[in-house]
Amino acid sequence: MENYEELLIEILKKIAQESQTTDLSIPVGISNRHCHLSREDVESLFGKGYELTKLKDLSQPGQYACKETIMICGPEGMIENVRILGPERKQTQVEVLQSDCFKLGIKAPLRLSGDLDHSGDVTMIGPKGSKMLVSGVVVAKRHIHMPLKDAKRFDVVDGENVSIAFDGARGGVLNEVIVRVDSNAGLECHIDVEEANALGVSSNTNIVIQKN
Amino acid sequence: MENYEELLIEILKKIAQESQTTDLSIPVGISNRHCHLSREDVESLFGKGYELTKLKDLSQPGQYACKETIMICGPEGMIENVRILGPERKQTQVEVLQSDCFKLGIKAPLRLSGDLDHSGDVTMIGPKGSKMLVSGVVVAKRHIHMPLKDAKRFDVVDGENVSIAFDGARGGVLNEVIVRVDSNAGLECHIDVEEANALGVSSNTNIVIQKN
Repeated sequence: MENYEELLIEILKKIAQESQTTDLSIPVGISNRHCHLSREDVESLFGKGYELTKLKDLSQPGQYACKETIMICGPEGMIENVRILGPERKQTQVEVLQSDCFKLGIKAPLRLSGDLDHSGDVTMIGPKGSKMLVSGVVVAKRHIHMPLKDAKRFDVVDGENVSIAFDGARGGVLNEVIVRVDSNAGLECHIDVEEANALGVSSNTNIVIQKN
Repeated sequence: MENYEELLIEILKKIAQESQTTDLSIPVGISNRHCHLSREDVESLFGKGYELTKLKDLSQPGQYACKETIMICGPEGMIENVRILGPERKQTQVEVLQSDCFKLGIKAPLRLSGDLDHSGDVTMIGPKGSKMLVSGVVVAKRHIHMPLKDAKRFDVVDGENVSIAFDGARGGVLNEVIVRVDSNAGLECHIDVEEANALGVSSNTNIVIQKN
């Protein structure tokens, strides 16, 4: 009887492995507006020596939401409670929704994270000070974080431009999704709140890649 | 010489007609949150005998934006400056964005205009009073207003479910777009602000139908 049990366990393991290999769906992460701050800007906004407080881990390894938020202001409006994501980065970056640009009265280009040349400007306000961020505001270009093993499985390469398909009452296809292969990444497709709402996507939706 | 001029004018007219016939693009109208009020609700919110003031005509014949706005409130938040669209309707209807539902703390189904059974609730607040709207809040289902002659040209019928394609840096395809044929309609595809931002669409974008 014990042998049957062992055999059964082996069979179930095999089935699990197999379904993992053939599962070509990708979990979706929905980003709201947020910012990444440099050490210098943490100190400008929160005071000298201030350390950000981790609120909760995000799905990407090492990334977390902080307890702290800031206000961002443009010539035509302000937005409160913009979440800071940790850890600190070399360069401060504010990621907004397209509708935020209208609210703030600013222009921000559609970019991948870190590509900040000639991007938008905004004034950041914290409890201990404010700072004008010149060229640091972008609307996030949709992308898929992918570890190398998954890139092989999906037959895509770093930087590849793919489409992603959604079912449902607001189903459709989003083109211009950039694959970002990184051995430290967790498999996840990042779209923003407006993209998610337009396609009727919730955080437990899985998407499927369509190669172009 | 005069004959040549006349001939040239005739040729140019023919070319213009021809290009109009073969042009299968459709102008896009982008809707923000708004409401349509009944006479009774105009009086509840603005006072007995109050008449709404036309601010500007909309692209659909007979429809206009009013000078007046209201505030809408749910259990978790409120939204100011919700534009009233005229003329008055038999039944009050509030059309919100998906993100507004989170802000307000309400649920509103995805529906075509006028389909209000078991839809969302919200409290409407005007300068002279407030009123709880029970079953009158929806998220607008994307649709294409189409006069009969265009329906023939596009080879679609009233109620048909089509897809619409967008080019550009946020290009893609939106499925589940309902054709609404009406002899009084102007040809126009209506999507909301979140859908427009997600697909990088501005109000002078033209879209192309993909039949399913």
